[in-house]
Amino acid sequence: MARQIVADLYGCGPILDDVEALREAAHTAIAYVGAEIVEECVHKFEPIGVTYFAVITTSHFSIHTWPEYGYAAVDIFSCSDTVVEGIQEKLKELFGAKEIRLREVEREISDGGHKR
Amino acid sequence: MARQIVADLYGCGPILDDVEALREAAHTAIAYVGAEIVEECVHKFEPIGVTYFAVITTSHFSIHTWPEYGYAAVDIFSCSDTVVEGIQEKLKELFGAKEIRLREVEREISDGGHKR
Repeated sequence: MARQIVADLYGCGPILDDVEALREAAHTAIAYVGAEIVEECVHKFEPIGVTYFAVITTSHFSIHTWPEYGYAAVDIFSCSDTVVEGIQEKLKELFGAKEIRLREVEREISDGGHKR
Repeated sequence: MARQIVADLYGCGPILDDVEALREAAHTAIAYVGAEIVEECVHKFEPIGVTYFAVITTSHFSIHTWPEYGYAAVDIFSCSDTVVEGIQEKLKELFGAKEIRLREVEREISDGGHKR
């Protein structure tokens, strides 16, 4: 069973509209969960907001920011069946967030019972 | 309230390892939900599997495929608060899937009660 971490971060710091700071935070978080970046793409919205996406060895890591709310949406889709300990605190720290609400969504990567 | 559609597709057709066919399916699905592509990135894994990601006007659209299982994971993160009618059938058709399991994850894009 794969897991997707769906994290909503509130009360974030100035990082939210800073492409290079977000990229650095993403790299730290990706290394923290033991994955490696295969490819990445970053888009800066005008006037504010950033989307960061990395294809990682275990699927994907994405960030969407709404600096006007101090809000960031972070998703970590991982083939690994365990959630990395401390990831909640790590993300909170990296984004300078006052609050993080983290959920897990299970994804069943299988044939789903359908013969090939 | 934003919504994230988390769809697991089983028993998919040959599209799963075909980058151009996946790109075309993604374009059709993105147009179907009324979004536009801002940027996209595609990665072909060796020997098999594809990750497709598009930054769209309403957030993101991602596909990960495991052709060896006939499985695809599709996420549509949308700022819109309504789920597009018929998206389940549309995805199933586009991927030639025998089964689709679709869930919705609510994302609260707000200040979360934290003063700026």
